[in-house]
Amino acid sequence: MNERRVVEMRERVLSKIDQIAAGVRAALAAQGVTALNFTSSPGSGKTTLLVRTISDLKGRAPISVLEGDQETDHDAKRIAATGAPVLQINTLSSCHLDAAMVESGLRGLALSPGGFLFIENVGNLVCPASYDLGEAMKVVMLSVTEGADKPAKYPKMFRVARVMVITKTDLLPHVEFDMAECVRFARAINPQLAVFAVSAKTGEGLDEWYGHLLSLRDRA
Amino acid sequence: MNERRVVEMRERVLSKIDQIAAGVRAALAAQGVTALNFTSSPGSGKTTLLVRTISDLKGRAPISVLEGDQETDHDAKRIAATGAPVLQINTLSSCHLDAAMVESGLRGLALSPGGFLFIENVGNLVCPASYDLGEAMKVVMLSVTEGADKPAKYPKMFRVARVMVITKTDLLPHVEFDMAECVRFARAINPQLAVFAVSAKTGEGLDEWYGHLLSLRDRA
Repeated sequence: MNERRVVEMRERVLSKIDQIAAGVRAALAAQGVTALNFTSSPGSGKTTLLVRTISDLKGRAPISVLEGDQETDHDAKRIAATGAPVLQINTLSSCHLDAAMVESGLRGLALSPGGFLFIENVGNLVCPASYDLGEAMKVVMLSVTEGADKPAKYPKMFRVARVMVITKTDLLPHVEFDMAECVRFARAINPQLAVFAVSAKTGEGLDEWYGHLLSLRDRA
Repeated sequence: MNERRVVEMRERVLSKIDQIAAGVRAALAAQGVTALNFTSSPGSGKTTLLVRTISDLKGRAPISVLEGDQETDHDAKRIAATGAPVLQINTLSSCHLDAAMVESGLRGLALSPGGFLFIENVGNLVCPASYDLGEAMKVVMLSVTEGADKPAKYPKMFRVARVMVITKTDLLPHVEFDMAECVRFARAINPQLAVFAVSAKTGEGLDEWYGHLLSLRDRA
């Protein structure tokens, strides 16, 4: 076994995939599309928040979606019900999307100039942190049921993200979750992190989240 | 780039790690210790359930714990408060424990004959499914806040587990979670899967879970 050899080959594979990511980024910029890479644990409510965001921003921002899941097309079906263009990618044995999957997925997806591409990554707080998909930025979601210390336990994800969305705030009365402590853990790792706290069920915090989204697009 | 070469080298690395797992399994069997590898999403309540299990089984079953986290020793501290022997392993860039980490961790951990070794894996429903740590079996946990379709979306984990513990049932009145549908998804993938539904907060379902645990030990 030659571990250094394995590492070197892995680096060459990564460098190839970084070139693909750069190509995706350039192509999206040329089309005036703002791409966000959404990551979280499984079951943090990514799809639910994206569905509500798409519906609420209808008429203000066209949104296309690439759905990443190890298996099934459940999430793509939920997105499709909003009328937004969507394409499901099944990563099978892989714990994350990569830029080659995104490049290939984009061949089958309609994009709108001045709109968004939402990329919903596989539910996983580790692997997706290491992969550039060609997005403008990563947005990490964390539900209040998961506990306030997750940024400290999975620091790389919270370091590479530009935005943290704390989800399911409607459940706050029923769980022990210290919002201030969570934000403190996250900002200790990433002082610039923008933070939003929302409930896709009650609508709490969504106006601030939408305002931020639209400002990202308008700055792009 | 020679992808086949990378794959071959990866296979050799895996075969070496499988030998280490076999060594761990033999050493644990020789000491009469039943080892369980607990996996789940981040924030599913693994540590909370393990802390309560250790406390409630005090006097009936000695339990030692290996804690796997990407970073921090938060979970080891929570376990240590019960008085159980515990050792924290930080996996850093890795999304899972491996048998070499367990082998090395066991050198610093006291085990009791006729007792359990609980191995709490990194919170992740993908990577830990592929790694044999030398455990007697994998136990996958899923909280009711994560949604009933997770077994279908992360099938490998639910295929390799022998037990599924549905956690946080106290939150059922506040979330949409169809227990029967979840079990149906899981058993479609793994018809033999044993299923328990518990709340570490209210104690619901814990007697059945403890009964199963003790029967695993007595059968070993």
